[in-house]
This record gives sequence, structure tokens and C-alpha cells, in this order.
Amino acid sequence: DSHHDQFLAELMRYLRQPSVAAQNLGMTEMAALAKEQLEARGFNVQILPTDGHPVVYGELGNGPRTLLIYDHYDVQPAEPLDLWESPPFEPTVRNGNLYARGVADNKGDQMCRMQAIEAWLATMGKLPLKIKWVIEGEEEIGSPNLEAFAHKYADLLKADGCLWETGGYNELDQFSLWLGLKGIAYFELRLKTMGIDAHSGNATMLPNPAWRLVWALSTLKDANNRITLDNYWEHVIPPAPDEVALLEKVPFDAEKIKSTYGAKAFINDMDAAAAKRAHYFEPTITICGFESGYTGAGTKTVLPKEAKVKLDFRLVPNLTPELVYDLLRKHLDRRGFSDIEIVRFSAERNARSRADSAVVQAAITAARKIYGADPVIYPLMPGSGPMYPLSDMLGIPAVLAGLSHNGSRAHAPNEHIRLKDYWLGQKFIGEFIRAFAEL
Amino acid sequence: DSHHDQFLAELMRYLRQPSVAAQNLGMTEMAALAKEQLEARGFNVQILPTDGHPVVYGELGNGPRTLLIYDHYDVQPAEPLDLWESPPFEPTVRNGNLYARGVADNKGDQMCRMQAIEAWLATMGKLPLKIKWVIEGEEEIGSPNLEAFAHKYADLLKADGCLWETGGYNELDQFSLWLGLKGIAYFELRLKTMGIDAHSGNATMLPNPAWRLVWALSTLKDANNRITLDNYWEHVIPPAPDEVALLEKVPFDAEKIKSTYGAKAFINDMDAAAAKRAHYFEPTITICGFESGYTGAGTKTVLPKEAKVKLDFRLVPNLTPELVYDLLRKHLDRRGFSDIEIVRFSAERNARSRADSAVVQAAITAARKIYGADPVIYPLMPGSGPMYPLSDMLGIPAVLAGLSHNGSRAHAPNEHIRLKDYWLGQKFIGEFIRAFAEL
Repeated sequence: DSHHDQFLAELMRYLRQPSVAAQNLGMTEMAALAKEQLEARGFNVQILPTDGHPVVYGELGNGPRTLLIYDHYDVQPAEPLDLWESPPFEPTVRNGNLYARGVADNKGDQMCRMQAIEAWLATMGKLPLKIKWVIEGEEEIGSPNLEAFAHKYADLLKADGCLWETGGYNELDQFSLWLGLKGIAYFELRLKTMGIDAHSGNATMLPNPAWRLVWALSTLKDANNRITLDNYWEHVIPPAPDEVALLEKVPFDAEKIKSTYGAKAFINDMDAAAAKRAHYFEPTITICGFESGYTGAGTKTVLPKEAKVKLDFRLVPNLTPELVYDLLRKHLDRRGFSDIEIVRFSAERNARSRADSAVVQAAITAARKIYGADPVIYPLMPGSGPMYPLSDMLGIPAVLAGLSHNGSRAHAPNEHIRLKDYWLGQKFIGEFIRAFAEL
Repeated sequence: DSHHDQFLAELMRYLRQPSVAAQNLGMTEMAALAKEQLEARGFNVQILPTDGHPVVYGELGNGPRTLLIYDHYDVQPAEPLDLWESPPFEPTVRNGNLYARGVADNKGDQMCRMQAIEAWLATMGKLPLKIKWVIEGEEEIGSPNLEAFAHKYADLLKADGCLWETGGYNELDQFSLWLGLKGIAYFELRLKTMGIDAHSGNATMLPNPAWRLVWALSTLKDANNRITLDNYWEHVIPPAPDEVALLEKVPFDAEKIKSTYGAKAFINDMDAAAAKRAHYFEPTITICGFESGYTGAGTKTVLPKEAKVKLDFRLVPNLTPELVYDLLRKHLDRRGFSDIEIVRFSAERNARSRADSAVVQAAITAARKIYGADPVIYPLMPGSGPMYPLSDMLGIPAVLAGLSHNGSRAHAPNEHIRLKDYWLGQKFIGEFIRAFAEL
């Protein structure tokens, strides 16, 4: 219908504006466009500065309940461009899908939510609650300024629940809700024992940084994959019974996962139940990269001067990036590895909301109405994201409920959403607002 | 004098012929030139085929003693060409040095030895011993066919002593003799746990090949640098008292070594005496390279599908490449690391001759006469080379006595020898032949 045509044109305009934070491409223009679109729905909008790209912040409505919405106006870089079937910033409809960089992650959510509110205002009148909307500009570069922003504006951001970006359909194409994310702390361990590489004949006497990293790493996790970092497990709390109960209803196709990655078996030959539980509730320490010395074809008899390893810690309650950094530094120092430098990269704390919170219950109610079935409720998504500063830190329960499906290719070429999900998503947002205001 | 001019012209012709085995460049022409030059001195020469480049083999003279000489007609690749001050295959004299690829390693030795024999024949008449000369064509690519050659021609090669290629002056510019080499076994450990890289969020359940290599490696050597490979030390025999006594007279400038490489300290803070002893007599296992996952700038949350490590084992008696491969395979299998593939590269056995052998005593006698001082006698060179098949394997004591000085830059751009060493070297060869025939 003509509404859909107009809404789609608006969405395509929103997608046509590049906004790649990592490349500082179109960010000012995109923030202005987000502000304009919120204002077009009557929002009172401010561009709130941070140490990086600013936050676009809007408020609208009044009522006993306040809903915080989180989205981001930045997108992933579009490269490699040659793998796109249509240009990333020229939104294109093919076979009922809309292709564009950022349509799934997460400009589609934003415009869908704005248009749902517009429809509410046009048909129902005033909003039954207050909406506070944070659209940040640095999600795809790790939200380095979001925690400081949330601290600074903690009073402004007070709310009863938070609707998070992204989410949508699981791998069985069931509409799903996710109630949290794992935390992450990413480090690079660096060791340089010499100013220049030496001939390996000197390995009798000159220190080898690759060996030292191997020895240090081998004290962090044993060959049974058990993390052995000093004082680590005393900070880890097991999932709550209701989280475990939720997970039992979540689908998990162990054979499909193994065949997707071409893995013969899970770690320690875990069965599906153990792997599923580990996947959602266990913390990890992962070697994402290791580099030292000669890595080309054949041989080079070299004693390398330096070695580097990239380590990704995924965090569950109550591990935090600061804590694991501190534990790691002390663990290494205690074993004589003070020469190993730890460089800190991304750090995001874990976030978990409970299924009995109003915002989750409202999402369940709305999902039943719109999608005709109980949504699948995941206690968390096993990835990481900047949810903590706007949820657990401020005491606001949050839920991920979005438009993506399992093949949406967020972060990859040919990112897309299915248009039918977009129109259903608008109806979902309307029902969600109603339910959250009434519950 | 005119002899020197003619000899130098001959040497330069020998150097002008490229002969890079790794690039299969000029090998046939060089073998023919070596044959021609030996024949010009009256040698009976055969081109003996191998599975690779052939061996040029010559015989001349008769006497109670037989001397085996080992040289190689192949040279290292000349690259990087832009770092040469004069082209590598255009021999050039500058400041009393002769620059050319292969002049130090080891065409200079060959021509020096041939011309010394020519001078003997011209001035003294017949040789007082039989010379058997092996000039191989694959030394710079690891002599993959030399052991099979030596087995096949074991009877032909029978001799009382062997004059090895290279050697010359130590870092204090003292004329030196080396009585052996360490062995080497170079392996690549490879592990692939998945067909594709995974997102690191899956590290909860999917196996990480980098961790598995770290765990496997950590069982090979402990953090005190002690090799812990199963059943390894029972094969290692300590140096003989006379070898230890020789080493005591060898110079070792610990502070200079540390400052050359920019190392703060030796492994385990060894003092100079401990480092020296370790350097000459200890075996090693060295990580020469480690590669897995993402190694660029910043972060990538990846669970790598594969990992590779390059390991260099330096061998002392009675470790052999076959033995350490077998020990390593069993050690890994015993610990559940059968999934780690071991790819074998270079393998050379250690070789050691004793100072009281006739060939070493002849070299000492000749050195005293020509260089006016006792040579420094190293029980071995801490590097590796293809000495074993022509020495220990055939029961022939061998000595390294050559033309290189500490700055000769073998294998590097601007390889050179000092011409004064070349002319002294000719005299040394004459005295050595006399002494070896008479001793």
C-alpha cells in the first residue's frame, strides 16, 4: 500500500547515507539525519557530545512507564565491495529482501521503530509512556565512550526497561528474544627478548620469546580446556535456575554446528547438552592469534626476537574486563613473566536481564500477538556488545528484539532484511509499547 | 706477482659462473667448470649422479695416506640484489677483499685448494698421498642426497681424514679449526581443527588448534628451559673430557654476544662459563615460528581453524633426526596429541672428530707454520651441516679449515674474503698435505 511505499522510501533514504565510524565516513551527516527523523515524529532531540562521535538523544511522550531504546547510527565498513551484488549504500529490493549496509545492524530497527511510533501517533494519539532514545555513533568500533556517557547522563537515562538493538529470528526462523550478552576483554600479550632476530644456533643461550609465551599461556588453561588463571573461578557465579530453565527450551543443533565449521567433535567430546550449556554460560579464554618468527613456506633457522598473542576473554557474571586484566597481570608476575606486556583492547561487561521483568514480559506478550507463537527466549546471546552501560549499570532490564534473521549477513557483504519482517516488526513495536505501558 | 694475477683471474672465472641450487641456476655449467678445473690439475674426474644435482668427484695422487676433501659448487641465492655494492656474480676486488657470491662459502676454498695442489705439483712433483675430492651441488639446500651418495660410494670414499669446507678465522681473527658440527632436525607441527575459522564466541565448544599446540609444546620444554621430551636425555651423552678441555681455551665474549643481539641476559641468567658450555655442548628445541589466526593490528574475534609451529632441534651425540622424530611422535601420541601432524624438513646428524686424529694434528702443524701461532681448536661449530655422511658415518675424522673471517658475510649480500687470507690459505694447504702425508 502507499504507506508501505512511503515508509520504504524513508528507510532507503536512511540507508543511503554512509556512516562508517571506523572510517569516519558520513558520521556528522548521519547524526543530523537521525535527529531529523526523530524530530519528524515529534521527539525533542539533542546531539550529546562524547569523546568520539556524539549520541543522538530523543524524548517523546509521557506516562507512568519510561522505555529506553538503544540503537546506533554507525555501520560496519562495507568492504570487500566486490562481493556485494548491489552497492552497499544503494538500498535495493530483490526477492522480497532489502539489501544495504546497516539495514540489519541496525538502521532497519531504528526506522521500523520510528515508523511504528508514527503510526501509533496517527491512529491512537499520544504515546502511553515516555520514550528515551539513545542512538549512538560508535557501536561498530566497540562503543568506547558509551560507559562514560551513561555515567554522565545516568539521571537523564532513568527508565523502567530498555529495548535493545538487533535480534529477530533464530536459526530455526523462530522469533526470539535475547536477555543479555557476554562480556569481553581482548588483550595482546607482547614479548621482545632481543633487539634483532638471531640464528637459531644461539638458542642454547639467548632467550626465546615464543617459548616464554607458550609457557605463560600453558598456565592459563590446561589441556582439558579448564581455565587455570589464579583466583578466576572464585569470581564466576553459575547461572540462576530460571536461566538454566530458559536454556532448556532453546534449540541447539549440535550436529549442524559441527558440520558448519567442519569440526569432528566438540572440545573434550562434549555431548550436545554439555556443549549447549558451555556455549551460553561458560567464560572463555581464546587464542585469536599467535605470531612469532618465520611463518612462510619451508624452513628458516631463526631465533625470533619477539612474539605476540591475541587473547579474547569472554566474561560471565561476575567477571569484568578490569578484574581479568588484574588477575592476568598478577598471575603472570607471580610466575616470573613480568617481561610480558599486556596491551588492552576492547572491553565490554556482561549484561543479563531476567525473564520476569516488565520489558521482557511486554516483548513476550507482543510477540505472541504478532507472530502467533511464544517467542524463543534466550537467557543471553553468546556474543558481546555494549549493553551493560545502559542496562545492568543503570539497573534497567533490557531485551534484544529486532528484525534480523539467521542469514541477514550483518557485518558481511549483501547484508539484508526480509521486508515482511520489517512490516511485522512495526506491528510488534506497537504491541510492545501497548503491553509495556499496561503491564 | 704474475702467479697471483693468473690465480686470481682463475678464481674470478670460477665465481662468475652462477650456481644457485635453490633456483636451479647454472648448476650444469658449474659442475662442468669444477670438473674442468680439477682435470686441469691432473685429477681423474667423474660426474656422479644423485637424485638431485650430481657430485663432481676427482682423484689424484698416491701414497700411504688418503685425504678426502669436501667442498660444494652450489651457492646461496644472491638476493636481495640491491644490497650488493658490486654484482654478486661479477667478482670485484675492493680494499684487498674479493667480493662475490660464494667466494667464502665455498668456491674460494675450492680454487685455493686446487691452486695449492697445482703449486705442489709444479714445485715438489707428485703428491705424497691420494686425494679424493667430493664437490657436491646441494649443500645450500640441505644436502638431501649426500647421505645416500656416501652409502652408495662408501668404498670409493674410504680415506684417513677429511678436510672440510669453510672455517677460517674466529671473531678475534685468530686462525681456527673446528672439529665438528651439531645435528639438526627441523619439523613443522600442524594442526587443523576446523574447515573454516569461527567467531571466537564459539570458543566455548569448538576446539582451538593454537591452544592445543601451546599445550603440546609446553610438555616439550619447561619454563626453566629444560627439555622434557620423553626418553630424550637417556640418549644424550656428555662431552668427553678432552672436548671440555678444548672448549676452555676457546674465546667467548658473553657481553659482546648479549649486546650484539640486544639481550638483557642469557637464559636462566647463565654466567659466561655456563652459557659457553651450553652453546657448544647442549642440544636445543627452538620455536623458530608460530602462526595462527589473526596477527594484524588491533583485534579480530576469531577462533582460528589451524595453527602451525616450526621447531628446530639441534642435536648432540647420540641424538639423531630419526630418533627425535620418533620420540616426538610418541610423546605427542602418549598425551593425546595424535591430531598434530609432524612434517619433517632438514635433517643432518651431528659430527665430531677428535683432536688427536691425524687430520687434525696435520692441520695444527700446518697452521703453526703458516700463521705463526697455535690455532684455536673448537670441539665443534654450534651450527649444523652435512658433515656426518662423509665423516662419522664412514669413520673418517674431519676438520674445518678454510678462508672465511668473522665478517665474510656468507649467505648475505657483499660476501667476501680477504685476499691475503687466500694466499696464506694456499700455503696452509701445501703444509697441511705435507704434514698429513708424514704424520
